[in-house]
Amino acid sequence: MTSVLLQADATISAINNMWILLVSFLIFFMHAGFAMLEAGQVRSKNVANQLTKNLLTWSVGVSVFFLLGIGIANLAVGNGFAAGAPFLDSAPSAYIGWLYGAVFAMTAATIVSGAVAGRAKLRAYITYTFLLAAVIYPVVIAMTWTGQGTEAGGLVYRITGTAFTDFAGGMIVHGMGGIAGLTAAAILGARMGRFNDDGTPNVIPGHSMTFAVLGTLVLAFGWYGFNVGTSAIFGPDDGLLLDQLGRVAMTTTISMAFGAMAAGAVAWFMTSKVDTLYVANGLLAGLVGITAIPHTTAWWGAIVVGTISGAQLPLVFKFVETTLNIDDVCAVFPVHGSAGVFGTLLFPFVAAPAFRPDSLSGFVDAFLAQAVGVFLIAGWTITATAIIWYAFKAMGQARVSPEHEQEGLDLSEHGVETYPEFGGDEGAVADGGTIKTDGGVSAKRGDNE
Amino acid sequence: MTSVLLQADATISAINNMWILLVSFLIFFMHAGFAMLEAGQVRSKNVANQLTKNLLTWSVGVSVFFLLGIGIANLAVGNGFAAGAPFLDSAPSAYIGWLYGAVFAMTAATIVSGAVAGRAKLRAYITYTFLLAAVIYPVVIAMTWTGQGTEAGGLVYRITGTAFTDFAGGMIVHGMGGIAGLTAAAILGARMGRFNDDGTPNVIPGHSMTFAVLGTLVLAFGWYGFNVGTSAIFGPDDGLLLDQLGRVAMTTTISMAFGAMAAGAVAWFMTSKVDTLYVANGLLAGLVGITAIPHTTAWWGAIVVGTISGAQLPLVFKFVETTLNIDDVCAVFPVHGSAGVFGTLLFPFVAAPAFRPDSLSGFVDAFLAQAVGVFLIAGWTITATAIIWYAFKAMGQARVSPEHEQEGLDLSEHGVETYPEFGGDEGAVADGGTIKTDGGVSAKRGDNE
Amino acid sequence: MTSVLLQADATISAINNMWILLVSFLIFFMHAGFAMLEAGQVRSKNVANQLTKNLLTWSVGVSVFFLLGIGIANLAVGNGFAAGAPFLDSAPSAYIGWLYGAVFAMTAATIVSGAVAGRAKLRAYITYTFLLAAVIYPVVIAMTWTGQGTEAGGLVYRITGTAFTDFAGGMIVHGMGGIAGLTAAAILGARMGRFNDDGTPNVIPGHSMTFAVLGTLVLAFGWYGFNVGTSAIFGPDDGLLLDQLGRVAMTTTISMAFGAMAAGAVAWFMTSKVDTLYVANGLLAGLVGITAIPHTTAWWGAIVVGTISGAQLPLVFKFVETTLNIDDVCAVFPVHGSAGVFGTLLFPFVAAPAFRPDSLSGFVDAFLAQAVGVFLIAGWTITATAIIWYAFKAMGQARVSPEHEQEGLDLSEHGVETYPEFGGDEGAVADGGTIKTDGGVSAKRGDNE
Repeated sequence: MTSVLLQADATISAINNMWILLVSFLIFFMHAGFAMLEAGQVRSKNVANQLTKNLLTWSVGVSVFFLLGIGIANLAVGNGFAAGAPFLDSAPSAYIGWLYGAVFAMTAATIVSGAVAGRAKLRAYITYTFLLAAVIYPVVIAMTWTGQGTEAGGLVYRITGTAFTDFAGGMIVHGMGGIAGLTAAAILGARMGRFNDDGTPNVIPGHSMTFAVLGTLVLAFGWYGFNVGTSAIFGPDDGLLLDQLGRVAMTTTISMAFGAMAAGAVAWFMTSKVDTLYVANGLLAGLVGITAIPHTTAWWGAIVVGTISGAQLPLVFKFVETTLNIDDVCAVFPVHGSAGVFGTLLFPFVAAPAFRPDSLSGFVDAFLAQAVGVFLIAGWTITATAIIWYAFKAMGQARVSPEHEQEGLDLSEHGVETYPEFGGDEGAVADGGTIKTDGGVSAKRGDNE
Repeated sequence: MTSVLLQADATISAINNMWILLVSFLIFFMHAGFAMLEAGQVRSKNVANQLTKNLLTWSVGVSVFFLLGIGIANLAVGNGFAAGAPFLDSAPSAYIGWLYGAVFAMTAATIVSGAVAGRAKLRAYITYTFLLAAVIYPVVIAMTWTGQGTEAGGLVYRITGTAFTDFAGGMIVHGMGGIAGLTAAAILGARMGRFNDDGTPNVIPGHSMTFAVLGTLVLAFGWYGFNVGTSAIFGPDDGLLLDQLGRVAMTTTISMAFGAMAAGAVAWFMTSKVDTLYVANGLLAGLVGITAIPHTTAWWGAIVVGTISGAQLPLVFKFVETTLNIDDVCAVFPVHGSAGVFGTLLFPFVAAPAFRPDSLSGFVDAFLAQAVGVFLIAGWTITATAIIWYAFKAMGQARVSPEHEQEGLDLSEHGVETYPEFGGDEGAVADGGTIKTDGGVSAKRGDNE
Repeated sequence: MTSVLLQADATISAINNMWILLVSFLIFFMHAGFAMLEAGQVRSKNVANQLTKNLLTWSVGVSVFFLLGIGIANLAVGNGFAAGAPFLDSAPSAYIGWLYGAVFAMTAATIVSGAVAGRAKLRAYITYTFLLAAVIYPVVIAMTWTGQGTEAGGLVYRITGTAFTDFAGGMIVHGMGGIAGLTAAAILGARMGRFNDDGTPNVIPGHSMTFAVLGTLVLAFGWYGFNVGTSAIFGPDDGLLLDQLGRVAMTTTISMAFGAMAAGAVAWFMTSKVDTLYVANGLLAGLVGITAIPHTTAWWGAIVVGTISGAQLPLVFKFVETTLNIDDVCAVFPVHGSAGVFGTLLFPFVAAPAFRPDSLSGFVDAFLAQAVGVFLIAGWTITATAIIWYAFKAMGQARVSPEHEQEGLDLSEHGVETYPEFGGDEGAVADGGTIKTDGGVSAKRGDNE
């Protein structure tokens, strides 16, 4: 009767690959979340620009990551460029793993667009995305995930003797993206009118809270794929990983929930109002915070991680705004950057008993490895990003002209109006007597009807 | 060669748990659906309030259900509080089942926010959500689902000798949520301007049909997880449940379709227009109607259930509005409440041959068990909800001040504007001394109602 | 120990059926994508009409496909009507396969609504949907997919001796839908004001780019289910299809990415702006292009298919607009029609080595079979669609009155306003000679810019 039984490897491979495909689809869907979250947080005159950036981040980025990025990551760890994606055509099942890697890479890439919204030139942003997908992110994963396959523990292990822990990319994907965004936003300068001459900030509210919250919930949905999907169903020794899957599902849920509540509570203490956007971004910060360590954190640890990640959000946002005077439009640094760093560093302190270092020196070693990993990733990301954006700036290619910024990037870069029938753009268009009504496309309100 | 074969329990556990995780993600995504459906159905001055409630329903609710709710459900059936979620940290695979239960619980919780929109205080709503997640819903499942594990058939079985049938929560989740919403809305009173002094109603249209329909379709997507995902892939005896999965997928689809058509047809008979919102809510009512009994209903039965669920929607909505004079803003009672009750009661009459009682007394017993279950759940839900909201009212904490209601809850409770660039709020805000009052009641062009 | 092992057929059936269910849910979710994509591309006065059509396309279509369509497809291939869906009630596991077929059928149906937006009568559209689901699409699949089960290769094989290749419906679903839409739009005539007396076009921009891009990304998410989900996990010989799954996942991703880039690049060459909507629709055209052949195409072939599919979009759109003078509102022909045809015809030229014909005559045969398939499907679709819409026209039932078109279909067909608080409709509601233009344009508070 053995002829009608399946070999274990076929069953395990079927189940693991089906899972990888489905969670890859979920993670891809996070682009809809980012698009809505960012679109909601920008002025209506810049919405189409933000949407185009999101569409092209995915399109350009995934193509580059296919043709160059994964090859460069392999090259960096000594496997040779030819281990990259196009060369898999004779073993196409390996494309499943490529897509799985690609959706993580594109998450890192897309975070940046939220920080540079409203003034970066499209071509500058796209060029940066090209370089991020080809080199910056591949080097980060070569230092960590990709490198762990070839040298136990990756670069951090070689330096500290302890492996760097980042389960699903709390630092590698989100921290990196948030830090890159802050760096680019700092070099690019703030939107016109964002800060007064004395450095005090003006609030430029986003055009639609509804889209922002929709994006938040789409991201949270995809995040279950991101975090839980980072665990296989069957492990390398053919054992079922239900304990890991269950823990990741729980810690992801609890940290997200406490992130939202903590950010809302801090906002309430600060202004006696429960700011909707802080609650939404706090929920996301809670997700970012746990992403490095969902597989080891205790249930109470998830509460701690979520609470810290959510509570730091309004504070770090204010710090970036009022002290650093950086115009991080969609708050990508407090949401993805600092929350990612905090979560990564909290690793040994919030671990469940089975994962907790059993000595003080174990705590020190674990924390040190985390800190070195954060330092390496942040240092590389800031350096590479700064070189690129300073180069754009030197060439006069970093940001649009003041006239185009005033008019809005939708008209100047894309020749479209996002809401041609609504009044949203009006206040943003030319001031000084005349209202420019034609909007580039001959077609708008009341036109020919 | 047996060493390279998998034991059946590992295969079955892998497949069932992967399924549970994926459908839990889908059911979680229904929060995006509820958020959009409700946001679309409220005035633009109350959108951020509605969105915040949705974010906090999930965040507060799931935390409370984790820390208290599931423990109280276990306590109520005699398993002891310590069988609850935090205590699973040493057996984390059990968190998979906890999350699965939690996404059903949070669906019940979030329905209420649609009924009390536009005037409930945020703190009152959040406190109610706390109590729903901690006690009200846990007691409902202790009477039914959770209880069925410990005493065959749960409370209804102990009373009637026949088990209560509610496959995926048509009554336990949706009926309960709809009834709770109606109760809270009745005690809270209507929005200002919703009813004239003589009791005749004014229509206060929602601010965006597009978001409402988007929410509808997101809900329908998640509902496949809700209903089909309530079936395991392999049953307790290790048998494949393909027949059950197939039937649930079909009845869910057909009842949804006939719900939309029936509600649209009734609206068309009533007004000679096919009202978009009735079609959308009819689709949802069709889904609610089948949710208790998708695993036993014949194909023609699904048509019956969908048609009744959809057709009752405009009629029950009108009854609630004009006879009861209750301001159920998002029609949660006709969509979730009455449709859930009708579907639950229809159980024996629409069953496929294999599930049909084979005698008149069998029909009577089955119907009686359903009726007793509906009565118990409705009675408990109304009682508990009424006590809580009357207490809020007695403390003056149930609803916002008339000024805040006029101004909109976005400004008064959250300090934000949802659409700062669009004209939506105008009618609600004070400009130069006069309050442009109505809150939009008359702010309706082409008003031919 | 064999008693605790699973038979292979149970494991394979469990995994394949779970996959089919999950991808069916994903494909269903594409209706949310179509609803948002189309709603975003129409005037605000016609949004609720478009949304209602989407809700009813699914509801009416899937009911008809259940009761009649699948039976007629079976009848057409000689299996008898009674092999259709309602007759499966005693073998309900077969409903899983029915739902899987139904979500493909409904995709074809829903495409048409985007072409006839803004002037088709609701009852005409619904009647056409009825006939499409009952007869037009069933005949197409009887010629191809359904027919391949009974006669090797289907109708094309009987004519040419070579089987027609259309993996996931690039021609059968999308090409067919796009061609049907163009045909209906041509017969229906353009919206008022769309073309001047001399035939030159006016642009009538959609009311919300944000909804259009959201719809695009929801569609792309669902498309992974559409394409990758067309492959089973285990094949008929019980072999794992990982190579096929991996190739489809990669080609779908790469073609989508190059579609977006190519359409954006062509738009940029034409206008020196990167038009957001072209990028979005190019991404979709890239998906459509690969849908017939994702399982055989080489990685470089996916680049070719995506580039051609995307680049043809602005060109074919202009051709339809300026040469044919057809008002294809949502560009369904360039996105679904021509892209589907191009992809289907490219089959032999872009195949990976394992799938490439090994002789010139092999190329000719393969191309011929594709061309005959395209010809048959297009011919049948155009003929059937033209008869129906000419009949509607002859009865005066095809399009709404000029007054209703002016006023908007939301009011005239549905009695609702999509955005009662915003100024969107204003320009569109002509009353007695004056055009009300205020519509909240100046209604902007807190404007400190």
